Amino acid sequence: MNYSIIIYVLGLLLQFTAGFMMIPELVGNIYHETNALYFLLVASGALLVGSLLRLKKPKDKRMHAKEGMIIVALGWIVLSLVGAIPYFISGEISSYTDAVFETASGFTTTGASILTDVESMSHCMLFWRSFTHWLGGMGVLVFILAVMPSGADSMHLMKAESPGPSVDKLVPRVRQTAFYLYAIYFAMTAIEIVVLICGKMPVFDSFCISFGTAGTGGFSVKASGIADYNVFCQVTITVFMFLFGINFKFYYLILCKKIKDAFKMQEVRWYLGIYAVAVAIIVVSIIGQVGSFGKSLNQASFQAASIMTTTGYATTDFNLWGTLPQCVLVLIMFVGACAGSTGGGIKVSRIIIYAKEIKNEISYLVHPRSVKRVTMDGKAIDDTTLRTANAFLGAYVFIFAISFLLICIDGFDFTSSFTGVAATINNIGPGLGVVGPYGGFSGFSCLSKWVFIFDMITGRLEIFPMLILFNFATWRKK
Amino acid sequence: MNYSIIIYVLGLLLQFTAGFMMIPELVGNIYHETNALYFLLVASGALLVGSLLRLKKPKDKRMHAKEGMIIVALGWIVLSLVGAIPYFISGEISSYTDAVFETASGFTTTGASILTDVESMSHCMLFWRSFTHWLGGMGVLVFILAVMPSGADSMHLMKAESPGPSVDKLVPRVRQTAFYLYAIYFAMTAIEIVVLICGKMPVFDSFCISFGTAGTGGFSVKASGIADYNVFCQVTITVFMFLFGINFKFYYLILCKKIKDAFKMQEVRWYLGIYAVAVAIIVVSIIGQVGSFGKSLNQASFQAASIMTTTGYATTDFNLWGTLPQCVLVLIMFVGACAGSTGGGIKVSRIIIYAKEIKNEISYLVHPRSVKRVTMDGKAIDDTTLRTANAFLGAYVFIFAISFLLICIDGFDFTSSFTGVAATINNIGPGLGVVGPYGGFSGFSCLSKWVFIFDMITGRLEIFPMLILFNFATWRKK
Repeated sequence: MNYSIIIYVLGLLLQFTAGFMMIPELVGNIYHETNALYFLLVASGALLVGSLLRLKKPKDKRMHAKEGMIIVALGWIVLSLVGAIPYFISGEISSYTDAVFETASGFTTTGASILTDVESMSHCMLFWRSFTHWLGGMGVLVFILAVMPSGADSMHLMKAESPGPSVDKLVPRVRQTAFYLYAIYFAMTAIEIVVLICGKMPVFDSFCISFGTAGTGGFSVKASGIADYNVFCQVTITVFMFLFGINFKFYYLILCKKIKDAFKMQEVRWYLGIYAVAVAIIVVSIIGQVGSFGKSLNQASFQAASIMTTTGYATTDFNLWGTLPQCVLVLIMFVGACAGSTGGGIKVSRIIIYAKEIKNEISYLVHPRSVKRVTMDGKAIDDTTLRTANAFLGAYVFIFAISFLLICIDGFDFTSSFTGVAATINNIGPGLGVVGPYGGFSGFSCLSKWVFIFDMITGRLEIFPMLILFNFATWRKK
Repeated sequence: MNYSIIIYVLGLLLQFTAGFMMIPELVGNIYHETNALYFLLVASGALLVGSLLRLKKPKDKRMHAKEGMIIVALGWIVLSLVGAIPYFISGEISSYTDAVFETASGFTTTGASILTDVESMSHCMLFWRSFTHWLGGMGVLVFILAVMPSGADSMHLMKAESPGPSVDKLVPRVRQTAFYLYAIYFAMTAIEIVVLICGKMPVFDSFCISFGTAGTGGFSVKASGIADYNVFCQVTITVFMFLFGINFKFYYLILCKKIKDAFKMQEVRWYLGIYAVAVAIIVVSIIGQVGSFGKSLNQASFQAASIMTTTGYATTDFNLWGTLPQCVLVLIMFVGACAGSTGGGIKVSRIIIYAKEIKNEISYLVHPRSVKRVTMDGKAIDDTTLRTANAFLGAYVFIFAISFLLICIDGFDFTSSFTGVAATINNIGPGLGVVGPYGGFSGFSCLSKWVFIFDMITGRLEIFPMLILFNFATWRKK
């Protein structure tokens, strides 16, 4: 194990975190909020510790898959623990567990909240809360890769932090890939902010809501969520939520003018197909209740995009919808967005892989001597990816089951407990029942909150980096 | 495709079904019930059609995996459709859909019921209902294998009908294996009947309840389920439910005096371990509510054995328990019993395989160049079994999701719809909410009932035989 590189990169991460905290500090100054000072305080501490950790440069800069995953897992835990301090020491969130929950929920782009009165928070805190969505969406370490003059072999970092069964490098060099990803991400976020401001949303809200959309996070700045903004803004958010759930390779291909290739991407087609079916079912189910077709379509397309991309914004309380539309939402909750996007869930590409495996299995049973490969966009998927995808489904189910068991100790009803776990492990935010779009997680016990924190980070990092951290053999010397 | 062997074996199956129906006919005669005549009528019809189908002996007796699975899938559909006729034409169940539901629930050992007043049924119908459990538990085609002078290569039949990721032949010859399995099955059932009669249960009830225990079915003959029998009988049933959930290889090893090998079986150890943990959690959770430790232990051990082995008997309405014990029941619902037993669910051995795959995956990530095999009882599991087990999990989740969606159209609450699908696909019987132990499936629509029928048969046959039946390519000529 190359401990020195782990410590070195964690130091770097702390330094960057300090830098990130200066942005809410600035926002606080604009609004003349004294609480902004806490960001300065925490940032100074993070900078100091980070610099100390980076004092000793690692001789060996090689990073294996193992180190990559450990850095990412530890990094995300550190981010959540450090990012929570401003909330806590300012007293705006009185319990440290709650503060960590809120921060982990932010970075992992879950958007689940323990706040009972979001409108009483100061601007700097709300900005930080939404900004963590933006950073976590594309990945903090990917950001560092994008802006640092590289040196270390950092593909493993990117692999561990980017969602999806396999990472497509857009270009051969990792640093360049990270840079392009962030460039597209930044540009799209900027466009959304501008469009929302044009749609007469307040500037502060436009920033926060756009961060939440871009990262597919879901923290809002109003108690009513998105319901009180005008229809233009709601439709804009629907469109951008959907767009941020698409594999970013799609945009890269379009920028390279390979438009045909972009629209040939199987994952994008499936994503669009599943979304369209979900919206259609919901519209048909709620039209009687909601009234007009236009209103139903607006609510259905918004809610389906919000849940499928695992954003979690709400314009309406879908707890009041019937069982069928709720069931559709729960199912697309598990499907999730595309790999290589900022969304969570199991990911459309994994669903495709599983579907093709089942199809192949049936072929094998009918023709035992045939040779079949699982392919995606015409290319065969290698055995390692396939093996990992299978183990992923198993591990996912296991962690889900154990979390569900632990959450049930609190004694909330079956639906709330089940969808609470689903909403955190898939990084969505709201579930049904108590944890519905206008409910929250504040009523759970400390134990449950830490389970949720674990689930959020584990879900965001797609399970294995966290499992490796808790695997005894990882740390054992040979 | 060897169509002639398929038709031939289906004819044989109908002839056997006719024979099986003579037993409730006899029971009806004992109680002087005129409805017994309907069994004679249906049996004559089945015998006639069966004989016609067997007129042409197949020249080619070879049976591939494909034919084996198609025979089993079609066979089980035929069994459900034909076995339902007596209920329907006697008028004791007024809708044919309901009658098929009840029969499929019987043969697949689910034990879910659409009856609202079980005690108003005639003895012959109740006996047939429970007897289908006994036949379905070990498998109707396995029974035919066990008693017919073999000839055809029938391992594929056994593979398709027996639960579990791989079938252990106890002895090299398939016929002999089938015979031993049924001998053990018959002997254990007989012992339970005798013990229950000694425990002062009425003779008729002892037979029916023992059939339900042996097949891990769950149909009872009283509206109160098992609650009104004395504690001795309840404990007896608990023990036998647990015993019938064990891999029958265990008993074979014990009979061969390989007692050490028997107790070394990993699956049996895990099964015992999971059961013990589940009982412990439930006891701790309900002791405050139930009162004494003894009573809690009785209820917990009964309910956990009933749900884990997918039997579905109830001595108490666990809808009234808290969320935690209910969650434990839902989880062991999915785990299910051992492979090679009469129980349903995903099966303990598959859970072991998935757990080991996850462990191996972590090792691979830590040491990418290591070579790891998934082993069971010291033997490596071959790639085909592993591939099928992975595809199984995927297919299971898919079918679950689609069924859940279709059931939700009826608009029952989330918990009832979810556990209703779980209870049928895992062949358990009761779920939570509306479909709880003292509720039932009578309120669902026709569409939902057929979805449940499909799920029951698909669950019992472990998915792939049914999927092959509905696969277009299976029937296409090359």
